[in-house]
Amino acid sequence: MTQETIDRIRRFTEDRDWDQFHSPANLAKSISIEANELLECFQWSDTEYDISHVREELAYVLVYCRNMLDRLVLDGDEVVNAKMAMNESKYPVDKAKGKSNKYDSL
Amino acid sequence: MTQETIDRIRRFTEDRDWDQFHSPANLAKSISIEANELLECFQWSDTEYDISHVREELAYVLVYCRNMLDRLVLDGDEVVNAKMAMNESKYPVDKAKGKSNKYDSL
Amino acid sequence: MTQETIDRIRRFTEDRDWDQFHSPANLAKSISIEANELLECFQWSDTEYDISHVREELAYVLVYCRNMLDRLVLDGDEVVNAKMAMNESKYPVDKAKGKSNKYDSL
Amino acid sequence: MTQETIDRIRRFTEDRDWDQFHSPANLAKSISIEANELLECFQWSDTEYDISHVREELAYVLVYCRNMLDRLVLDGDEVVNAKMAMNESKYPVDKAKGKSNKYDSL
Repeated sequence: MTQETIDRIRRFTEDRDWDQFHSPANLAKSISIEANELLECFQWSDTEYDISHVREELAYVLVYCRNMLDRLVLDGDEVVNAKMAMNESKYPVDKAKGKSNKYDSL
Repeated sequence: MTQETIDRIRRFTEDRDWDQFHSPANLAKSISIEANELLECFQWSDTEYDISHVREELAYVLVYCRNMLDRLVLDGDEVVNAKMAMNESKYPVDKAKGKSNKYDSL
Repeated sequence: MTQETIDRIRRFTEDRDWDQFHSPANLAKSISIEANELLECFQWSDTEYDISHVREELAYVLVYCRNMLDRLVLDGDEVVNAKMAMNESKYPVDKAKGKSNKYDSL
Repeated sequence: MTQETIDRIRRFTEDRDWDQFHSPANLAKSISIEANELLECFQWSDTEYDISHVREELAYVLVYCRNMLDRLVLDGDEVVNAKMAMNESKYPVDKAKGKSNKYDSL
């Protein structure tokens, strides 16, 4: 996300004085709620979906994730890189290649 | 997210030949599943939570969102800005300020 | 569910003094969290799943739903029948037969 | 749930020829989707909620759970009692009383 997009999301919240609703718990609920509106695009079929609807719901998940990073004063790149480092060691290429198993059953 | 972080996520998937599992429907399920591991951090309390656990689960949601953008060849900034434009008109500042109502009951 | 099963669920909560955690909001989170552990059984495949794991997670969803009915002093049959009456009129057989469309696009 | 209510749910599905959509994976998605519509009732407040909306969404979760029990030819009481037996031993009263900790951190 560019700084401009991030600023737009922040300004949207500030202009509406919505920070008061953005407790970490409320944002966690919101991410799950929007993730399920995204999931609803695939409720009855894995292959036929309305891409414009998918875009919209995925955007909403991303916006609430951004709100949460802001609220908790977290850096998106930092948290993702920390997680990727964990995943890289939990799922070594030679063991995990081509398999969808969880790390504890590889 | 920096290009470097995005590349790291892509390389992780490619190295493990996991693109075959990343259908849009499977990624939508995955985003919801991780969103709920995030929600679990707040299951019994809104105010006491393990921040390192929150960071980890939020990171996973972000990684799966990135996988989905990649799979559908979408631009994160573009989809978010399109959504923000919609939200800005659905929630005009003078009507929405300080209220948590949905746009259709403002 | 038999009265005996319902009583067992209630006794479990009472014996542990857990009613204090069972606010309607916490139970709503819990139902979503367990629903996603159930969903995880199908994360990477729609057809290969561990039935004993499915049974366990589905049971947990049912238990939390029962906790919520209890907390809100609702009758399960009553709420389900009210909903079924709505569904029967929203999805008339002649229009809805064999279609997975939502009622507003039938 | 009474046998009459169960039969009404089954007849609803049969009359519409919807069993074809009720794969276990689709029902797992549906349970999560409805659980999140329930969660949406508590998105911005834990204490102010529309009880008629809560009833409706909780009913939908119960209906999809019933559909899943039917699809997998499971007995609701049996799966719930098996789970309760597990919970009773994982959360002994003397250790778990008054605590919201997970069993592995009791």
